[in-house]
Amino acid sequence: MAQDSCIFCRIASGEISTTCIFEDDSSIAFLDAGPLAEGHVLLIPKAHASTVDQMSADQAGAVLRNLPALARAVQDVTGCEGVNILQNNGSVAHQTVMHVHFHIIPRKTGDSFNFNWPAGEYSPSRAEELAKLLRDKMA
Amino acid sequence: MAQDSCIFCRIASGEISTTCIFEDDSSIAFLDAGPLAEGHVLLIPKAHASTVDQMSADQAGAVLRNLPALARAVQDVTGCEGVNILQNNGSVAHQTVMHVHFHIIPRKTGDSFNFNWPAGEYSPSRAEELAKLLRDKMA
Repeated sequence: MAQDSCIFCRIASGEISTTCIFEDDSSIAFLDAGPLAEGHVLLIPKAHASTVDQMSADQAGAVLRNLPALARAVQDVTGCEGVNILQNNGSVAHQTVMHVHFHIIPRKTGDSFNFNWPAGEYSPSRAEELAKLLRDKMA
Repeated sequence: MAQDSCIFCRIASGEISTTCIFEDDSSIAFLDAGPLAEGHVLLIPKAHASTVDQMSADQAGAVLRNLPALARAVQDVTGCEGVNILQNNGSVAHQTVMHVHFHIIPRKTGDSFNFNWPAGEYSPSRAEELAKLLRDKMA
């Protein structure tokens, strides 16, 4: 259900114009107006979902089947060396618009977007314990 | 086509055991062995693709329809406040295993994973110029 107060619902409905790149029944892609790099694209579902966990499997499949072609287009047009796909859920995860959006971020050596990678480790027993809990949720 | 030297192909085939959380015809999900947080999960296609641009639309849809349920499971089990979905393409984008993998990263206030957000802006003419180039690629 579209939400009147949601800027991405208003973009999806055409009420707010944007630099549209692609559109199909389920999704629309457009330039991020505050780009991390030239050619930074957003892919969103037309139907409102605040966060990815609120999407159905069918909706996620229909929207995200467009991800490879969009990544190829961004690479071809920008000549970037790599791409990050990033989707943020919750303010702690840096979500600022509460309508699911997948960032397609072109990357080049020395660019300004970056993240750390503080990898930890599990004891084997803790890994198996967590995996069992997750398996049970997925069953 | 599976690649003998690819650790994720060897996980997908069952040659290397892992803490599997979910599996279907197209995809497998397991705990990242070097987690950014407890419950950090990887979702990968079983069929080899080095980067997301190499996936077909059907493959991407089949794999990524599992993303919402996995995000829900990670949230339920870890009690996290948010989740980042991150998929890295190319070493410049921090890809270290050359087989597509979507990170599902639980986030909590004060945790150690973080990124900056150096948002820029376009002139209207530059945005429209870039959008046209991207639309032409998607046409």
